[in-house]
Amino acid sequence: MGGILQRIQSPADVRRLSLSQLNELADEVRAALIRTVVVTGGHLGPNLGFVEATIALHHVFGFPTDKIVFDVSHQCYTHKMLTGRKRAFLDESHYGEFTGFTNPNESEYDLFRAGHTSQSVSLACGLAKARDLQGARHNVIAVLGDGSLSGGEAFEGLDNAAELGGNLIVVFNDNDMSIAPNSGGVYANLAELRASNGACEQNFFRALGLDYRYVENGNSVEALVAAFEQVRDIDHPIVVHIHTTKGKGYEWAERNPEAAHMIPPMFDPKASASAAKEVPLTYQQITRDYLSKKMAKDKSVVVVNAGAPSGVGLTPEFRASCGAQFVDTGITEQHAAAFSAGLARGGAKPVFMVMATFAQRAFDQFVQELGLNRSPATVLIFGAGFYDIDATHAGTFDVVLTGNVPGITCLAPATRQEYLSMLDWSIDQSERPVVIRVPEKVLSGSDHAFNPKRPGGWHVVERGKGIAFLSLGSTVELAHRASSLLHERDGISASIIEALNYSSFDEPLLDSLLGDHDMVVTLEAGILCGGFGEKVARYFGKTPMRVLCYGGKKEFLDRVPTEEFFKIYHFTPEDIAADIEALLAQM
Amino acid sequence: MGGILQRIQSPADVRRLSLSQLNELADEVRAALIRTVVVTGGHLGPNLGFVEATIALHHVFGFPTDKIVFDVSHQCYTHKMLTGRKRAFLDESHYGEFTGFTNPNESEYDLFRAGHTSQSVSLACGLAKARDLQGARHNVIAVLGDGSLSGGEAFEGLDNAAELGGNLIVVFNDNDMSIAPNSGGVYANLAELRASNGACEQNFFRALGLDYRYVENGNSVEALVAAFEQVRDIDHPIVVHIHTTKGKGYEWAERNPEAAHMIPPMFDPKASASAAKEVPLTYQQITRDYLSKKMAKDKSVVVVNAGAPSGVGLTPEFRASCGAQFVDTGITEQHAAAFSAGLARGGAKPVFMVMATFAQRAFDQFVQELGLNRSPATVLIFGAGFYDIDATHAGTFDVVLTGNVPGITCLAPATRQEYLSMLDWSIDQSERPVVIRVPEKVLSGSDHAFNPKRPGGWHVVERGKGIAFLSLGSTVELAHRASSLLHERDGISASIIEALNYSSFDEPLLDSLLGDHDMVVTLEAGILCGGFGEKVARYFGKTPMRVLCYGGKKEFLDRVPTEEFFKIYHFTPEDIAADIEALLAQM
Repeated sequence: MGGILQRIQSPADVRRLSLSQLNELADEVRAALIRTVVVTGGHLGPNLGFVEATIALHHVFGFPTDKIVFDVSHQCYTHKMLTGRKRAFLDESHYGEFTGFTNPNESEYDLFRAGHTSQSVSLACGLAKARDLQGARHNVIAVLGDGSLSGGEAFEGLDNAAELGGNLIVVFNDNDMSIAPNSGGVYANLAELRASNGACEQNFFRALGLDYRYVENGNSVEALVAAFEQVRDIDHPIVVHIHTTKGKGYEWAERNPEAAHMIPPMFDPKASASAAKEVPLTYQQITRDYLSKKMAKDKSVVVVNAGAPSGVGLTPEFRASCGAQFVDTGITEQHAAAFSAGLARGGAKPVFMVMATFAQRAFDQFVQELGLNRSPATVLIFGAGFYDIDATHAGTFDVVLTGNVPGITCLAPATRQEYLSMLDWSIDQSERPVVIRVPEKVLSGSDHAFNPKRPGGWHVVERGKGIAFLSLGSTVELAHRASSLLHERDGISASIIEALNYSSFDEPLLDSLLGDHDMVVTLEAGILCGGFGEKVARYFGKTPMRVLCYGGKKEFLDRVPTEEFFKIYHFTPEDIAADIEALLAQM
Repeated sequence: MGGILQRIQSPADVRRLSLSQLNELADEVRAALIRTVVVTGGHLGPNLGFVEATIALHHVFGFPTDKIVFDVSHQCYTHKMLTGRKRAFLDESHYGEFTGFTNPNESEYDLFRAGHTSQSVSLACGLAKARDLQGARHNVIAVLGDGSLSGGEAFEGLDNAAELGGNLIVVFNDNDMSIAPNSGGVYANLAELRASNGACEQNFFRALGLDYRYVENGNSVEALVAAFEQVRDIDHPIVVHIHTTKGKGYEWAERNPEAAHMIPPMFDPKASASAAKEVPLTYQQITRDYLSKKMAKDKSVVVVNAGAPSGVGLTPEFRASCGAQFVDTGITEQHAAAFSAGLARGGAKPVFMVMATFAQRAFDQFVQELGLNRSPATVLIFGAGFYDIDATHAGTFDVVLTGNVPGITCLAPATRQEYLSMLDWSIDQSERPVVIRVPEKVLSGSDHAFNPKRPGGWHVVERGKGIAFLSLGSTVELAHRASSLLHERDGISASIIEALNYSSFDEPLLDSLLGDHDMVVTLEAGILCGGFGEKVARYFGKTPMRVLCYGGKKEFLDRVPTEEFFKIYHFTPEDIAADIEALLAQM
């Protein structure tokens, strides 16, 4: 175990090191990163590439007086090690103690919680302008990756930065890779800049009015320290373009940059290929299998992804197999949604596959280009629901995002059969945009529960009386279990209904409940505010029907184990049954 | 009245005209535009600048086989005249018959409804890709204005276009003006391109890998026809940068490009200055007056706007008076929201002023940079609520957008006094982001209704029993009127409560209603789905309380007179009172 990292208590200690000590520190940090991340899982490649840059930044600048903002912040592990959090990388008993992103709750050196892309320059512009209004003089640094550059917000920030003026240093970390290979015309310019040592005529950053400097060896402490010393205390915005290697120093990661972008816990690169075959059936796989066959039969089907293929199951092999029927638009949810609308209007059959958390970027396009224009695109939302995940990546807002927009048909299949028949119907129809909320769990059910002739219809799984469960997606499992308890304990035969469509109500079915039910219980894996259950409560508001809604509170869940928050939300069969019994006793 | 325009029945007629006839047509179109728009109101300047380009496009290309997508589409009036809709510009009895934006319901030459900015290239990319998948060969044209270029979605589209390849012609209409003067570093590059006849070294479009051509006289039919003929049927994406004059041919409009961007009906430029003094007091004016005093006292207050100052009352005079305390970020709602978060974190006091319809672009930033980070920025949402307006500009989704996001305090003042005390409290606090929903109507009320020590508290205007009205914003007026009717006709003394905070409930107050009320009536000027009333319905779902929610259906209202949809929504005192009476009779 190297001795320098052990002695670093704060960035002040990094500032005092010699260049050769900084290099030793880089070796120690890299070794700790590899040792730890293969156990804990996390963003391996991005962090390995940014070790030297982080050390050079902490050597040259004076944080926290100077301010640094990381984009996405998945490359901040070295920064955490140098700012009082190294135990999480050196001491197994502290592994996982800190989040994988910057977090002001952890440290004064972290200014923002981040996790989505392309916002660092905007945030840094705000810090810089605030400094200038107050007459202060520190440096403001934004770290921006080449992948994040494809997101329009990064352009907006860079464009505004040039005009705001004042000190602002954008460290542009170019490892020639997004999560997957980069997509976009600007990447040819970056390649040209790298090839010409930053000296080629055409320069995207200069075209925005920004000063510019290039560092070819972005993994050389010496080169980085020299460059950062030259721009420290600069009086105007500048981009320092550094060429780094994703996965630097770990051979497998350098050779497999997409796989090494983020690795699971207890990772074994040798085992990873064979292990993939053993995982249980997922909707990612079900979707790939379906789309492969569909695309072969219909050349107008085109899969669209906005620079985040892994979460939605778009493996490199699958993408390659699609040929011209796959488009990665870069990290551009706004564009990808509008592009899908254009594809649909042009007679193609787009399937836009997106994670719930990132779909948030496209709200306006859901309203305008999809809903208002009734563009018959299919949007598959993955990762929607309740997960034990960092708050920055919560997928609980998708029903708010889609279910309240006129003109969009929003479907929530509960079973694999429902999912596949919805997907097939949606791709081939040409009337309307359809959002399918891909369920959390793969359940089995009837082949005929979804009726394409009546896409607003819900599915009655059990017709009972007194109490009716209305479930969204795979929460139908929870309905069954709560219902069983009520049956066993109280002799109640509840109705169980899958609300297959959450953009409109199966009103005849709901109205029929008024005859022989006096309580409706809604279940959804998502935030209750603005969600599905509230609409049911409003529907029955003027009737004597009692409505109990189960789902998430309006809060950010931050790496909370599901069992823990399910208990708090009463999102368990026992709690639900007990709540119902208590309410029945009152009524 | 000129004779050529009269003879144009469809674009085929434009294709047959000689250059001199095209010039005559331009004169006739321009005269018709001026004559009509000063009566009907509308986007005068943008349309006057784009007369020749539209005529040249229709002369060179073969629409509707070739496809054209207008950005924002506020410059499409000439296109409408040439595609079978000229009567709306020539015959007073048909004035206003068509919308001010492209609309597929009107014409097969209009491919999309548009109204927000920066989406044309994305939509055109979709059309082009769909064409290529189907092996068709027509031209796809996107019209993009220089103002719209500041929006990140335009960058995303241009960046993707270069990579998609295939025929795509971006007509970049550069009149050196957004709604207001342009903001952003890229505009210096555009100025350089204009000054060098498109030949300068640095070129933003070429940096994105796009082919490029420049036309200095973008109001010359000859120059435009020549340029478009050269790029027709091109096999790769190209930007045709045309330099036009906003307001061309109408001296007042050329000299006053911001005022002439959009003019009101029955416009008289001579009277406009003095008339401004006679308009009733607005929240735009109240806000300006307040901010002027506040900024003078506190230099850390900074007003942020995303390229759309007019709707929120940021007049040129006011902006100039702010000095460094005003930032126009360009048409960049995503960046503007994140920038505000950065300002707040840096110790400044940002006030981001935005129209409800445009705020939709910033949903993810509301969640991440504002809500999750609890950045103490103030966001003032103007234009929220029910207006007789084009569907593209609906301001009915803002409560969905803000009220369902954890961490944001959302305030809905009903009166001027409440608004001012909320605004003052919000700017000076440093705990949380605050959204203030600026009311539609200026009402007067108590100076002490909003209690800064309890920002979650609601205001009981009348304490009655049986029925309680819960109103959001200036709908309290409707509550008073409905309540009066109930009092007169049925002797009911209802409670009237202003729900001053729609991000959280005044639970003690709501619970107290259970004792002596059996009906709650919610009122909100906005879509009910995902809105305020639904949350109230859920809150009372398990109780015997009946809940009636009044607000908007989930639909796009498209230039519908308010009285008309108020009647459909039962958003009138008479309808509400009658509904309540009917329900009481049933209970």
